Amino acid sequence: MSEVTVTLPDGSELSVPEGSSVEDVAYEIGPGLGADTVAGVVNGELVDKVDPVADGDRVVIVTDQSDEYLQVLRHSAAHVFAQALQRLFPEAKLTIGPPTDDGFYYDVTEVDLDESDLDEIESEMESILDADYAIERVERSREAALDLYADNEYKRDILNTEAADEDTVSFYVQDDWQDLCQGPHVDSTGEIGAVKLLNISASYWRGDEENDTLTRVYGTAFGSESALEEFLDMREEAKERDHRKLGQEMDLFSIDETTGPGLPLYHPAGKTVLRELSEFAGRLNREAGYEEVETPHLFRTELWKKSGHYDNYVDDMFLLDVNDEEYGLKPMNCPGHATIFDQSNWSYRDFPVRYFENGKVYRKEQRGELSGLSRVWSFTIDDGHLFVRPDQIRAEIEQVIELIFEVVETLGLDVEVALATRPEKSVGSDEIWEQAESQLRDVLDSGGYEYDIEDGDGAFYGPKIDFGFEDALGRVWDGPTVQLDFNMPERFDLSYTGEDNEEHRPVMIHRALYGSYERFFMVLIEHFDGNFPTWLAPEQVRILPISDDQLGYAHRVKNELGDHRIEVDDRDWTIGRKIRAGHDDRVPYMLVVGGNEAEAGTVSVRDRFENEANDVDPEAFRDHLDEEIAERTIEPDFLAE
Amino acid sequence: MSEVTVTLPDGSELSVPEGSSVEDVAYEIGPGLGADTVAGVVNGELVDKVDPVADGDRVVIVTDQSDEYLQVLRHSAAHVFAQALQRLFPEAKLTIGPPTDDGFYYDVTEVDLDESDLDEIESEMESILDADYAIERVERSREAALDLYADNEYKRDILNTEAADEDTVSFYVQDDWQDLCQGPHVDSTGEIGAVKLLNISASYWRGDEENDTLTRVYGTAFGSESALEEFLDMREEAKERDHRKLGQEMDLFSIDETTGPGLPLYHPAGKTVLRELSEFAGRLNREAGYEEVETPHLFRTELWKKSGHYDNYVDDMFLLDVNDEEYGLKPMNCPGHATIFDQSNWSYRDFPVRYFENGKVYRKEQRGELSGLSRVWSFTIDDGHLFVRPDQIRAEIEQVIELIFEVVETLGLDVEVALATRPEKSVGSDEIWEQAESQLRDVLDSGGYEYDIEDGDGAFYGPKIDFGFEDALGRVWDGPTVQLDFNMPERFDLSYTGEDNEEHRPVMIHRALYGSYERFFMVLIEHFDGNFPTWLAPEQVRILPISDDQLGYAHRVKNELGDHRIEVDDRDWTIGRKIRAGHDDRVPYMLVVGGNEAEAGTVSVRDRFENEANDVDPEAFRDHLDEEIAERTIEPDFLAE
Repeated sequence: MSEVTVTLPDGSELSVPEGSSVEDVAYEIGPGLGADTVAGVVNGELVDKVDPVADGDRVVIVTDQSDEYLQVLRHSAAHVFAQALQRLFPEAKLTIGPPTDDGFYYDVTEVDLDESDLDEIESEMESILDADYAIERVERSREAALDLYADNEYKRDILNTEAADEDTVSFYVQDDWQDLCQGPHVDSTGEIGAVKLLNISASYWRGDEENDTLTRVYGTAFGSESALEEFLDMREEAKERDHRKLGQEMDLFSIDETTGPGLPLYHPAGKTVLRELSEFAGRLNREAGYEEVETPHLFRTELWKKSGHYDNYVDDMFLLDVNDEEYGLKPMNCPGHATIFDQSNWSYRDFPVRYFENGKVYRKEQRGELSGLSRVWSFTIDDGHLFVRPDQIRAEIEQVIELIFEVVETLGLDVEVALATRPEKSVGSDEIWEQAESQLRDVLDSGGYEYDIEDGDGAFYGPKIDFGFEDALGRVWDGPTVQLDFNMPERFDLSYTGEDNEEHRPVMIHRALYGSYERFFMVLIEHFDGNFPTWLAPEQVRILPISDDQLGYAHRVKNELGDHRIEVDDRDWTIGRKIRAGHDDRVPYMLVVGGNEAEAGTVSVRDRFENEANDVDPEAFRDHLDEEIAERTIEPDFLAE
Repeated sequence: MSEVTVTLPDGSELSVPEGSSVEDVAYEIGPGLGADTVAGVVNGELVDKVDPVADGDRVVIVTDQSDEYLQVLRHSAAHVFAQALQRLFPEAKLTIGPPTDDGFYYDVTEVDLDESDLDEIESEMESILDADYAIERVERSREAALDLYADNEYKRDILNTEAADEDTVSFYVQDDWQDLCQGPHVDSTGEIGAVKLLNISASYWRGDEENDTLTRVYGTAFGSESALEEFLDMREEAKERDHRKLGQEMDLFSIDETTGPGLPLYHPAGKTVLRELSEFAGRLNREAGYEEVETPHLFRTELWKKSGHYDNYVDDMFLLDVNDEEYGLKPMNCPGHATIFDQSNWSYRDFPVRYFENGKVYRKEQRGELSGLSRVWSFTIDDGHLFVRPDQIRAEIEQVIELIFEVVETLGLDVEVALATRPEKSVGSDEIWEQAESQLRDVLDSGGYEYDIEDGDGAFYGPKIDFGFEDALGRVWDGPTVQLDFNMPERFDLSYTGEDNEEHRPVMIHRALYGSYERFFMVLIEHFDGNFPTWLAPEQVRILPISDDQLGYAHRVKNELGDHRIEVDDRDWTIGRKIRAGHDDRVPYMLVVGGNEAEAGTVSVRDRFENEANDVDPEAFRDHLDEEIAERTIEPDFLAE
């Protein structure tokens, strides 16, 4: 009997008989692991534990201690939802029901559901959990599956497209209910500790607005009631902090259907935060040797054909006709930067060349997928492109990572790092890929960074490091990436003269510190719950005269405090109401000035945490304010001293 | 015999018999003026002195002392060119030949000309000047004119369009030559003191690329040889300073046919200048109480229909289809600002509301009209929009003018000011126009500003003040405008609650300080001949080590000089060559460091005027540099002290 060899996460290899499953691999490692196996990750893809492994596969065993376990459990919860739904509404027709980052959904049709039905379905789900039905995988012929789904055009569509080349397909069966599904799933419904249905929305078959409208029910599931409770509390908190809600309350931005969906308008307060972020990035970039450039938003599509974006991105591009020539709004800034680079002659001595631009890009997302600042049609990237010699890759990547960590630490975010390696389809020689991946790995290792490997997730033109921002609620958002690119220098025929006086091809590095300003702004609004650090706050200090008699003094204090964003609240309100308004408006500092303060030339300082100090010398406060802003302190700390 | 009453420039009225000509009016004022009359300006339009005046006309007499005289003389020079051309090339067919700001052109066809023909034609023109032919106006019936031009489809086109409703048309005759023309002209060819043909280019009939291609010959004319010489010297100097030439030499920007015509790419050096300008404008605006906003570049055309731009601008707009809805790249920033304004409730106490944005706009000029940074498809305006109460107009306009003068003085430009008043087609009541015009006039008068009146040149929605920037060569470029707008607040139904608790309509003011960054950058490049003030210079200081031994010292000096744009010239060149390169690169200051300087801890300072000082303490230089940059001094003056 011949053998196959698989690679385990620690890099070691293991030979198992041909036809072995993921579970068999686990038992080969150890009987305890075999017994605990829930599923596997093979070459980066989550699969059932009974799926066979092939020679050369990279295999990770999933147990109930793995990160992937929750995904398996939630997939099973989606099945439990569908079973409960069909018990209560037998007419309901099922389409697809995958796990998501924080739960699952199921898209159904031919059933009229509203939020008031969710409690009843949830109760039915709980009785299915209590019944602890075994969940079993059954293989059927594709023909038999088509017969089974004679009345369900959606399942038939799947069988006739994704599964068109399969002889057999898998079903998962629990009790008297079954669903076409690739799995994996937990062993029984009782393994799902707690379920919760969350809300209902409309969706489209295969996400396409041209197709049938479906009903999407969102839910979540956890191994225990307490984990579910924690999630629901966090979700409530997140709702309070939703950037769309705060964006309106704090008058930061708006998105107007008349002017255009996915095209945010930044109001003065929001633009202030963006400008501070832009100045911070500009300073970091310039200090790191980047030079700022500016490229048009509109280009002839010749450019996108040259760069290769046209082939891959044309469906997402905003195209227009100008004098019978095709133009497009830029989906990327890199070809513009390559064009500027290409206009000079370069020597190895000039390298690295580092360009950056706050470059607005345009990508035509489906209208239904647009959401606040997190999914928009037009967003600005703090986009940098480096042109380097191969021997400079390591040092430049190190610098970029340091800059990203400086951003992250300045804003009190956490960060997740992942190295995405060579995908199946790629350009460039084995040698250059190995060199590049090992340089990235070296940088991460020697810098002592913790990171995951995203196997085969690199861009076709080079490996990359992905950063995720973890906010105060523990949620992780897509952040910037650092990408090596061997392809664009080829396509633009870029070159420099080496020390050997020959022409050489530079390597390009794509990088950002924030990623998209829009997305980053969203993360910060929610991370801080609108309580921006003083350096970012649209209004940094508010001076509250107790009566009109102190108006003159209030304005004198304002002038003494220098060139910061300071307002005087001259409304005809009681001081109590003014203080409440200041807290509601999330102003870091309020300075209360009454008769005593005006007479003594002092102020009473209140911060947003309701700390207070009286008889403060305005100059002492000003000195602290200058420093707090210059140092980008995260929380107002004048009163913490 | 009945009389008509005309208004003279000093505001006085004069009654003359019906049928009187401009010349008759001049004779009525005084026989000397009558004899000197060359032409007239009636209701803002240049006309022949024999043209009749009508009741209510505003009449200005043009003599050879008037600004308009040169225009008349150049129009006559265009005729002299055409006569000379047809003497030498009888087959040449004439189309139109108007005066321009600095000369004239004539568009001709059916003649094969190149630059080498210009000398011969110019000689022929000079003999026509020497002959001093009388130039006489002759009226003919339109029918006779059509017969005369049986072989000239262009002249017939004019007769059948612009002149379609006329019974008679005028010709100007000199010697045996004549041309269909409205005039006015000088009395004889001898009055033209000096002519010069400048160059040849291609043009289109009526400027439309769809029409026949014509040959355009440019020339100029003056009253004297010396004035012509002065002009030609200035033109040579202007050619040296051409921003397209300097833009390439100084690596400021490029425009690439592949990426798109009229769509500049700013290289690091150019972007540095733009960023400094933007920071300067941002500071001025914020200090003046403006709040920065940011609006998308792409809007549904619904917005442009609402604002009225669609009706007037659609041909110049870049339009695109998104999901079967029409979108457009913004030709103006104002509707976006009105949209933001409209999202809040406003009280009279909140006013004035002042928004500004570095807003990129897109206008589809004819490709043939694109030129460097002066005519582009996409340009950024430092655009401000104010929403004010009617009683605030005056103070706000005063503030805007002060800001513009601050810009002008900071950069050593001169400025021309003109008040453009109500045009024939306009919206808004007589009362509000009168009030608005008189407020603008008051501001200009009480500020002691010299200004011209551009009669009837206001926007249809309100009067405006136009600013022209006069550069170091005395050329005047279109600058920013301040416009009152009564229309857009109506169209957007904008309102605020007045002190009377009723809803009121605000007035909008459109304004910029620079106008277009692209145009302003062009003006500054040519004005300074690339020798930007230190605060704007892409490279502010260059340190030149005499040998590699001083490289370490050079870098220490660089660090001591602080956060400015300072480079160390570490090339393997002689010091002489490095100094020449520094001058060629237009660096304001060079610090030469040799062994003596390194030992003594000093530097030798050279400025761009080749002033020199030895044994300078780097700290003293740094203090001066900080101050020179902070104060935006126009010329490097460390060595002028």
